[in-house]
Amino acid sequence: MYGDIKLFSGTGCETLAEEISQHLQVPLSGRDIIQFPNENLFVRLHESVRGQDVFVIQTTSAPVNRNIMELLIMLDTLKRASAGRVTAVIPYFSYARSDKKDQPRVPITARLVADLITTAGADRYVLIDLHAGQIQGFFSIPGDELTVFALLSDYYKEKDLKDEVVVSADLGFAKKARNFAVEQDAPLAFVEKRRTDNTGESESLTLIGDVTDKPVIIVDDEVDTAGSICNAVRTVHEHGAREIYLCFAHAVLSGPAIKRLSAAPITEIVTTNTVPMPPEKRLPNMKIISVAPLLSGVIERVHLGRSVGKMFANYHTYA
Amino acid sequence: MYGDIKLFSGTGCETLAEEISQHLQVPLSGRDIIQFPNENLFVRLHESVRGQDVFVIQTTSAPVNRNIMELLIMLDTLKRASAGRVTAVIPYFSYARSDKKDQPRVPITARLVADLITTAGADRYVLIDLHAGQIQGFFSIPGDELTVFALLSDYYKEKDLKDEVVVSADLGFAKKARNFAVEQDAPLAFVEKRRTDNTGESESLTLIGDVTDKPVIIVDDEVDTAGSICNAVRTVHEHGAREIYLCFAHAVLSGPAIKRLSAAPITEIVTTNTVPMPPEKRLPNMKIISVAPLLSGVIERVHLGRSVGKMFANYHTYA
Amino acid sequence: MYGDIKLFSGTGCETLAEEISQHLQVPLSGRDIIQFPNENLFVRLHESVRGQDVFVIQTTSAPVNRNIMELLIMLDTLKRASAGRVTAVIPYFSYARSDKKDQPRVPITARLVADLITTAGADRYVLIDLHAGQIQGFFSIPGDELTVFALLSDYYKEKDLKDEVVVSADLGFAKKARNFAVEQDAPLAFVEKRRTDNTGESESLTLIGDVTDKPVIIVDDEVDTAGSICNAVRTVHEHGAREIYLCFAHAVLSGPAIKRLSAAPITEIVTTNTVPMPPEKRLPNMKIISVAPLLSGVIERVHLGRSVGKMFANYHTYA
Amino acid sequence: MYGDIKLFSGTGCETLAEEISQHLQVPLSGRDIIQFPNENLFVRLHESVRGQDVFVIQTTSAPVNRNIMELLIMLDTLKRASAGRVTAVIPYFSYARSDKKDQPRVPITARLVADLITTAGADRYVLIDLHAGQIQGFFSIPGDELTVFALLSDYYKEKDLKDEVVVSADLGFAKKARNFAVEQDAPLAFVEKRRTDNTGESESLTLIGDVTDKPVIIVDDEVDTAGSICNAVRTVHEHGAREIYLCFAHAVLSGPAIKRLSAAPITEIVTTNTVPMPPEKRLPNMKIISVAPLLSGVIERVHLGRSVGKMFANYHTYA
Amino acid sequence: MYGDIKLFSGTGCETLAEEISQHLQVPLSGRDIIQFPNENLFVRLHESVRGQDVFVIQTTSAPVNRNIMELLIMLDTLKRASAGRVTAVIPYFSYARSDKKDQPRVPITARLVADLITTAGADRYVLIDLHAGQIQGFFSIPGDELTVFALLSDYYKEKDLKDEVVVSADLGFAKKARNFAVEQDAPLAFVEKRRTDNTGESESLTLIGDVTDKPVIIVDDEVDTAGSICNAVRTVHEHGAREIYLCFAHAVLSGPAIKRLSAAPITEIVTTNTVPMPPEKRLPNMKIISVAPLLSGVIERVHLGRSVGKMFANYHTYA
Amino acid sequence: MYGDIKLFSGTGCETLAEEISQHLQVPLSGRDIIQFPNENLFVRLHESVRGQDVFVIQTTSAPVNRNIMELLIMLDTLKRASAGRVTAVIPYFSYARSDKKDQPRVPITARLVADLITTAGADRYVLIDLHAGQIQGFFSIPGDELTVFALLSDYYKEKDLKDEVVVSADLGFAKKARNFAVEQDAPLAFVEKRRTDNTGESESLTLIGDVTDKPVIIVDDEVDTAGSICNAVRTVHEHGAREIYLCFAHAVLSGPAIKRLSAAPITEIVTTNTVPMPPEKRLPNMKIISVAPLLSGVIERVHLGRSVGKMFANYHTYA
Repeated sequence: MYGDIKLFSGTGCETLAEEISQHLQVPLSGRDIIQFPNENLFVRLHESVRGQDVFVIQTTSAPVNRNIMELLIMLDTLKRASAGRVTAVIPYFSYARSDKKDQPRVPITARLVADLITTAGADRYVLIDLHAGQIQGFFSIPGDELTVFALLSDYYKEKDLKDEVVVSADLGFAKKARNFAVEQDAPLAFVEKRRTDNTGESESLTLIGDVTDKPVIIVDDEVDTAGSICNAVRTVHEHGAREIYLCFAHAVLSGPAIKRLSAAPITEIVTTNTVPMPPEKRLPNMKIISVAPLLSGVIERVHLGRSVGKMFANYHTYA
Repeated sequence: MYGDIKLFSGTGCETLAEEISQHLQVPLSGRDIIQFPNENLFVRLHESVRGQDVFVIQTTSAPVNRNIMELLIMLDTLKRASAGRVTAVIPYFSYARSDKKDQPRVPITARLVADLITTAGADRYVLIDLHAGQIQGFFSIPGDELTVFALLSDYYKEKDLKDEVVVSADLGFAKKARNFAVEQDAPLAFVEKRRTDNTGESESLTLIGDVTDKPVIIVDDEVDTAGSICNAVRTVHEHGAREIYLCFAHAVLSGPAIKRLSAAPITEIVTTNTVPMPPEKRLPNMKIISVAPLLSGVIERVHLGRSVGKMFANYHTYA
Repeated sequence: MYGDIKLFSGTGCETLAEEISQHLQVPLSGRDIIQFPNENLFVRLHESVRGQDVFVIQTTSAPVNRNIMELLIMLDTLKRASAGRVTAVIPYFSYARSDKKDQPRVPITARLVADLITTAGADRYVLIDLHAGQIQGFFSIPGDELTVFALLSDYYKEKDLKDEVVVSADLGFAKKARNFAVEQDAPLAFVEKRRTDNTGESESLTLIGDVTDKPVIIVDDEVDTAGSICNAVRTVHEHGAREIYLCFAHAVLSGPAIKRLSAAPITEIVTTNTVPMPPEKRLPNMKIISVAPLLSGVIERVHLGRSVGKMFANYHTYA
Repeated sequence: MYGDIKLFSGTGCETLAEEISQHLQVPLSGRDIIQFPNENLFVRLHESVRGQDVFVIQTTSAPVNRNIMELLIMLDTLKRASAGRVTAVIPYFSYARSDKKDQPRVPITARLVADLITTAGADRYVLIDLHAGQIQGFFSIPGDELTVFALLSDYYKEKDLKDEVVVSADLGFAKKARNFAVEQDAPLAFVEKRRTDNTGESESLTLIGDVTDKPVIIVDDEVDTAGSICNAVRTVHEHGAREIYLCFAHAVLSGPAIKRLSAAPITEIVTTNTVPMPPEKRLPNMKIISVAPLLSGVIERVHLGRSVGKMFANYHTYA
Repeated sequence: MYGDIKLFSGTGCETLAEEISQHLQVPLSGRDIIQFPNENLFVRLHESVRGQDVFVIQTTSAPVNRNIMELLIMLDTLKRASAGRVTAVIPYFSYARSDKKDQPRVPITARLVADLITTAGADRYVLIDLHAGQIQGFFSIPGDELTVFALLSDYYKEKDLKDEVVVSADLGFAKKARNFAVEQDAPLAFVEKRRTDNTGESESLTLIGDVTDKPVIIVDDEVDTAGSICNAVRTVHEHGAREIYLCFAHAVLSGPAIKRLSAAPITEIVTTNTVPMPPEKRLPNMKIISVAPLLSGVIERVHLGRSVGKMFANYHTYA
Repeated sequence: MYGDIKLFSGTGCETLAEEISQHLQVPLSGRDIIQFPNENLFVRLHESVRGQDVFVIQTTSAPVNRNIMELLIMLDTLKRASAGRVTAVIPYFSYARSDKKDQPRVPITARLVADLITTAGADRYVLIDLHAGQIQGFFSIPGDELTVFALLSDYYKEKDLKDEVVVSADLGFAKKARNFAVEQDAPLAFVEKRRTDNTGESESLTLIGDVTDKPVIIVDDEVDTAGSICNAVRTVHEHGAREIYLCFAHAVLSGPAIKRLSAAPITEIVTTNTVPMPPEKRLPNMKIISVAPLLSGVIERVHLGRSVGKMFANYHTYA
């Protein structure tokens, strides 16, 4: 239906793109991405993409705004170069937390970014574990949201912790934490956070559920400054958790994150490479599972017109 | 900036519209809404709306599809009649639960409906307590999502139950339940539901948190067939809750809902009239708070260009 | 050019869809269409449609608004499931009579519905004998309007009534009635209707043209409550028509239609199955010609990129 | 709601625009419309239109394509000059007969022109007696279709012909002819045309209805080459019509029209100036009613936000 | 990826289209283009284009507005006939000089025309030597701008004039003239024009650079009335140029152009057939290079999905 | 027509925005613009903007991509907060040099950015001296492009250099340089640059025209790394220019610009504050003219619906 497959990589996650290319045995197509002294980005493709089935792999983690603009400019380039179909493969979708107006006169930046990607020329998207699944609906173009929690869940099934409790550190993640707990056949607990003054500085933490003497897996979609999750670690620790595992999809790890994580009583951290992890951020207790096999599989299925849903058939989600 | 205010009511919630009209001291404008024998709906406005600031009040509860089509046809009529600005005021927004693809090859009907409303000609929307706040982002037109939980919270503050526990019956509502609990300065608990076989028929229920000997307020955004919420009632009852209150925004109450609710050990049910409540559904222990003052206030502020956010300044929400 | 052919059926005309499937020797693809207790419709496709050439067969007769919403939700589902091309095959297009503003402040619902179908994700349409051909122009997407009058005309040619007169019961159908008369090589007459008071209740009927002692074929695009057409029957009967045949494309037959038709002096009624005909509506003198061969032929030609126009080359239409 | 009223005239109907300007006591705003030697049209406005309520008066009769392009360029100029609202007032809308695909692989140019007008920047339209009312639905922007038949009907009511018959020369105009006949309280007759060979050269004409010894008013929406209407004149003449009046909205009168009309046994021709009538086309028996008062009234009402429908309240139209 | 190739020609450049057809060995597809007496254009395609890869060849030189409307109507016809992909091949793009607002309240007609072409249904464009390359950016659809200056440059390389000077007669063409000069390895000079009074009637001309005793090639994108270029000829002649050659892409040659060109001291004029050249305009010293091979090559490459850029790899352009 | 005026400033040019605010005597409206540790930008407005006439002042110089995203997010915020009209005031429009495809497979980023701004919610734009005036046509929304060359020209008129020559350092600026020269009543010269090898490293420079013993004003739209302009300075210096003045609109001055400018034999540099100029970049011979009075005047006129063109009536531009 569409022409040959072509892979392009932005500069946001070149190592991952290279890995995907090897999995697919499809070389990354040549392109120049230049930042001029005036900070303007410039893109030039080395080969014709007329009528081809193009996949652009670009994560939108830091440098966030540059990575987004780079993606948009690549999409414009591909559209004007008469590509047959362009799929934006975005392992980490930034601005996802700005997904609703929960106070007056704020933006919904996640919808804005979805619109920008469409305006720039994408025909389809591939995303991974969005902060809210509803962000799929911010797009009018079709696409696929994948989940790495099937992989993460398999990891823990194999580990076989015995008697573990799954803890959700963010009430907004409660439902997905439940699904993860179901897969592990484990009970669920929550760490609830409340502000105790007007400044938003101090807050109290409550554990809802029981973790005493149990191994605990704290799950979340992403970890940014690691403030909330380390508070959760501390809380379950104080409540007598035996061992504490951290498990999250997107390792944003900005600002004080690494310092906080390395100071916390965490047995192991398991995450993925949707956000590139520079060596200086890699902690000794950190395990990074690559999403390259997952993305390669999806790209191949999308190209061949096969079901993507089947790849996730064994990971159950409930309404 | 815009012309005079004009109110139109669909047939979905005529009593509520009449109430709003009285609050605003603005009469409902005349219109015919006819259903022909072939089921085609027809709309005719009795007066000119050229350049006016029109508010169409139409809920989309049952008959759902008819109410949606009626709203769309009214919007088309108003647009073609050269209205200056058209705001769709939709007290209950149906199809909100279809807000993401949580399994392969399903629709995102909430986004579709948002697009239909825009296509038909709405310039703005006013909605109340969406199933997910992200649905705001399904609209490209501006609008306001209001919350009745400020009203419901005030009700319980006044009631002053002492020592109550707020229980969320749906993990997807966990965050909003927490906000409600914060307002009541009450602890939070959860009822977690898991399927215990493949048929989806039977399920196990777990209480996470403690309710023994406490008055309990179970909160949710909407109650449909009342299956989940009555299970939650039973669960907290079994765990020794002293009194059980139900509190939700949208009283859909379809199918076996009334039978279930009247059989359950519930002290009081507090809800609103975003969905019209026919006499046969009104239980003796049910209290219905009208959203007419809320909607009137918002319509007036929107028309005059004043802040709507200020109306909710005392009800705190946290990310 | 496009992927494999896939047929989906809405619930509006499942028997017809089954017939088409048999003609094409292409099975109907599996899908769930569920109406929840809260009346929300839900669609789930059983198999991947990525890149395929999908035809959705859904009529929009009663339940009209449900059928339209169901079609829209199916289109959204298919678009988001990355179908290659989606053609909406709509044997009966409801709301077609709302095709212009012939009084102030009314909608043009047919244009609205065309826009809704496009917004929901259709790439093409197939329609049959629109109330006004101009409705084609309400769509910005390409499509095909088919006519069953070639079939109906062949039926009467074979019947060979001798000396028959073609009568148009609606002046808006005058031109198409003329085309039909030309095919039969028969003269044309009209029944003209005028209101005789302000209530719209009573009206006078005039026959323009001559039917005395002649077999008469009254033609129209659709019959709804059968009021006008039975008045026409009565009028030609009073003017001495020998035998009276009724011939129309769409058997909407709502409200008192069947009672009226069975009471009128009609020799034979010939129509089609663009609207499903439940057994209780089938009169002894009614002949229903299936549009399944026609639609199968068109679907095949559209899929293979062959001319559809050729199928109608022998039925002449004039400006 | 909108700024001051501003009138601009294209070169298509400058005399009519001048008349409208006088009726409204609003001067025509200055503009240059230049055709360069390379035939490119250029527009320059003499004064600021920022935020104003602009009406562009431009008919699209011959030179058709130049007039359309001129209108589009004026609209672009006004949009880019930040006009507040732009209404395209198009007394005669060309290409209206290309309003459906009545044979394979032809355009729907009327829809195309509607889209072009919208693309170029019009916010609203004002049109007069469209060939098919459905063309309103080709526009997504709001607008008003006016009818001159109220004026034409008043003219004949005053003339008081006694016992006249209204004849429709085109079956596509049958319904509007009926409305006209109702207003005159006169019977209706038709001239039906059939081709008698494959070349389309020769045709037979049939009178359906009775005109013997009666004054006849032949009505139509527009007269182009006058072939059909003069055939109709001849037919009713042969059937013994006493006097023959012609009455139509748009005097296109191209090619042999004037020669044919002057040769036919016509008592009087009544039409309007929606198409400019050069002196050499004015026949002695021709009466031209100006649409300037009608358009002035509508422009004023649109500007002030008053009902336009009221202007036509006495001219009845039926579905 | 797309269906078979199909070529259609408008009436604007039928000879060129015929030439292209011969080069490609693809026959021009049959179509009727009729202008009715009322000047309405009508298009009918003789054969099915469903799913095919269609190229419409239509120049937009005089009759400019007719040619544009004809192109738009052809595009609408093709879109509604379900063509697979439609490329508008426009050898000369009119209205290109209206590409910015260089004074208040004027249009940007080139953007308007780009939007009209897109609205009408083109999926891609092929254009030649636009007045400003930025006009590519007026299109949101992809496309290719070709240059004939590679051909023209080759012509002069072969001619080998020795010591020639390239002169730009229009400062807006300075950069492209420089590129041409680089290819010839020749110095550059300019003729600068200034108005010397307010009427715009008289102007002074200055030669910047040196041409004494040198052969001169005056280059420009298009020649319209030939006023500026003949002034440039006179200026370089007065400054002692030995021989004067004219070289431009588009031979619009309207109004007094031919008279002026034949009166000026020009050795040879080299141009192309992007604008059809009637015999009466062909001067003895005029050489016309056909763009048919160029356009054929591009159409073939676009159809096959091969690089178009490679065709121009030897003609250097610099920022 | 629109509500009250409201000014918002992005973080790109806060000093300029403050100046504009003082000129207009309209305070800058409060807003938070926060960059989170994960680099996501967040915007919150302090006051209601419902129905107001909002002007957002944000330059898009470095940090370029952050400034663009910030502008887009502000626009989204304003749109969703129901602003009446939003004008994006962008003193320096980045990416303007990417305005055409002058080689295969490159983007047209300036068009992309125009589309992003429109998608995000701007109703109008105000820009200053675009690299190419055609960029106006990249916008479908209306707007105003202002020029500072009227101010710069006045500066030199007052300075009265006697006998000066205007030199264009970039052939793409030739036409605007001519206009500037006309205003000064001075002759024009050019510095032409050619690459002399394939690496693009070395290049030859030619002066076309005469500057011996004359004061020279080198004009350009923007100066980025100052490479070209300093080469031009050197060239005219070598050709005996007496004094050398630099005059340009946008002082991007990135990378080695300041080092180069301070090393070159330049008498005076005159530019503006469309790009913020940090103290460390201010050279002793640099004069910065503020655009605040210009932008204030335009904002006031846009708000009041007065002609903006009149502000530039004395600065002549020619086609």
